[in-house]
Amino acid sequence: MEYRRIKDQEKDGNGDGSGVGVAVADDIESLRAGKPISGSNVAKLGANSFDRSKWQQKSIVTLALTVLTSSQAILIVWSKRAGKYEYSVTTANFMVETLKCVLSLAALSRIWGSEGVTEDNRLSTTYDEVIVYPIPAALYLVKNLLQYYIFAYVDAPGYQILKNFNIISTGILYRIILKKKLSEIQWAAFILLCAGCTTAQLNSNSDHVLQTPFQGWVMAIIMALLSGFAGVYTEAIIKKRPSRNVNVQNFWLYVFGMAFNAIAMVIQDFDAIANKGFFHGYSFITVLMILNHALSGIAVSMVLKYADNIVKVYSTSVAMLLTAVVSVFLFGFHLSLAFFLGSTVVSVAVYLHSIGKLQR
Amino acid sequence: MEYRRIKDQEKDGNGDGSGVGVAVADDIESLRAGKPISGSNVAKLGANSFDRSKWQQKSIVTLALTVLTSSQAILIVWSKRAGKYEYSVTTANFMVETLKCVLSLAALSRIWGSEGVTEDNRLSTTYDEVIVYPIPAALYLVKNLLQYYIFAYVDAPGYQILKNFNIISTGILYRIILKKKLSEIQWAAFILLCAGCTTAQLNSNSDHVLQTPFQGWVMAIIMALLSGFAGVYTEAIIKKRPSRNVNVQNFWLYVFGMAFNAIAMVIQDFDAIANKGFFHGYSFITVLMILNHALSGIAVSMVLKYADNIVKVYSTSVAMLLTAVVSVFLFGFHLSLAFFLGSTVVSVAVYLHSIGKLQR
Repeated sequence: MEYRRIKDQEKDGNGDGSGVGVAVADDIESLRAGKPISGSNVAKLGANSFDRSKWQQKSIVTLALTVLTSSQAILIVWSKRAGKYEYSVTTANFMVETLKCVLSLAALSRIWGSEGVTEDNRLSTTYDEVIVYPIPAALYLVKNLLQYYIFAYVDAPGYQILKNFNIISTGILYRIILKKKLSEIQWAAFILLCAGCTTAQLNSNSDHVLQTPFQGWVMAIIMALLSGFAGVYTEAIIKKRPSRNVNVQNFWLYVFGMAFNAIAMVIQDFDAIANKGFFHGYSFITVLMILNHALSGIAVSMVLKYADNIVKVYSTSVAMLLTAVVSVFLFGFHLSLAFFLGSTVVSVAVYLHSIGKLQR
Repeated sequence: MEYRRIKDQEKDGNGDGSGVGVAVADDIESLRAGKPISGSNVAKLGANSFDRSKWQQKSIVTLALTVLTSSQAILIVWSKRAGKYEYSVTTANFMVETLKCVLSLAALSRIWGSEGVTEDNRLSTTYDEVIVYPIPAALYLVKNLLQYYIFAYVDAPGYQILKNFNIISTGILYRIILKKKLSEIQWAAFILLCAGCTTAQLNSNSDHVLQTPFQGWVMAIIMALLSGFAGVYTEAIIKKRPSRNVNVQNFWLYVFGMAFNAIAMVIQDFDAIANKGFFHGYSFITVLMILNHALSGIAVSMVLKYADNIVKVYSTSVAMLLTAVVSVFLFGFHLSLAFFLGSTVVSVAVYLHSIGKLQR
């Protein structure tokens, strides 16, 4: 149990600083420059271009998250095909957090160079601002520890199915904690998203999940709530101060991510690391996966800053379908009828979500 | 191939006269009496009660169709459990049409007794009125004959899956031929209904249907178009003259149904009937199934008169889900995860269809 393959848990995570991050950060700066124009009533044109720029930004980060999440899953399939990897998951997770932290700092130093240090982009913080940042990382730690115990009740494919509870829990906690409303049609779309994703994952053994014992259901629901709560809480933190630079917010999120992952590393893999070394079993693909997880995490943060948890859930769900389609070409996978049906339902859900907003 | 179990093809069919039929016919009379009040602008109250009565009527016929279709499927399961039946399907279909004809006449004679013979309820007709009535029956005949050939390309469970094309073909032909509009949300709901029904029917062998050869797909689509066209055409005939008594309309539909089924009987089962007799292999359950098919056919006609083909499709789809749930209690069936997911999608589709109408 100690050494395991890297999990797709990071995509529940937090976020920024590099490649995608920097490009988006530039966009934000141009956006911010446009803000005073739209703030005044000078010209309707200004407000329109502000809206368009905001929409563009939202689209770019959402697209980045979709592509990164999708390639993440493809890397996992690839690594499975390439044979067994004996690296420690907790060290990999720690490396992901460290890389995200470094990338956030790199983006920040670029911004400091061009703009100078301002109230919004300075790294130093107050106790009141920083006190909430450890909470998401702590929630993920608890969730990841629980993950070790749920496999006593559910097998891995069953767990993949039960993870779709995350969709519903995110929707409910988004409504309760952030007090944002979804229209009736958007709620219907969200239920469809959950049903469609689950349908797309069905295989001949999926019915086993219905025999999950009561403890398994309870743990799956608790894990979904923890994951949903962490996502919604991260959005609340990031949105609390809209003018604050997202790279600073990410830096603090990831610092605590590093700290909590260090704890997990010590609890679970101390002996193995001490005997075999920190980087034992690392390969080229492990490095690629760490890089991908770091960028995905940053993309999640960006989506939470410029869009919301609902967009994040749609984005990662569509990514799952994209992965399957790409796998047909890359690995010669066969798509099942259930996959086509699930994809149809998810597509309709995305459509309904978008028209549901207009009709609100 | 000659002797086969009665098929659920009748539910695509036409409609009325007895039990349910008579009760509904009485409702219609009270509705018609109320019409002049709402026709004038005397009182808003009158129009409201007219709307409510219309809504009630629509609900009653829809509920009747759902319950009858659902019990139809349960009778089929029961008959399969009870052992093999050696009766001829074509004689049973002929009996169904004959029974529907008799029930329509019985309802008419009741109405003639209470109201006298009027322009709207007299049985005699013009060439112009009656010329269109053979068309639906002829279309079903062609479709049922094709059914014998499609099994060269698709197995029976695969055919059940492909039959869901009927949902889409009905929607498209409803739009094109009857020129009635569905809102964007209602179209989305219709696609979901099709995906949800198919999902609910998935089992471990369903993926075989993806290997259906090209000819099989073409035949399935042609059969779906024939079935959809027959349904939409029947609605057009029945609605063309709204004041015409539905029992007269049904009588003429069923007379031609008898004629075309007689042709099918001679083509397919002449030798068997000549050697073994018309009622060979009939049992108590055969009689029950004929009775149920006749009442279902009448309910379909009623739904087409007072609602439309879209309501008919929703009603028969929900019936399919009801059947599965009832079978759990009656026959100890196990429901699959796919069934739960499909039912969820169908339920959301029904909800979206109803709110889609309000927002149009």
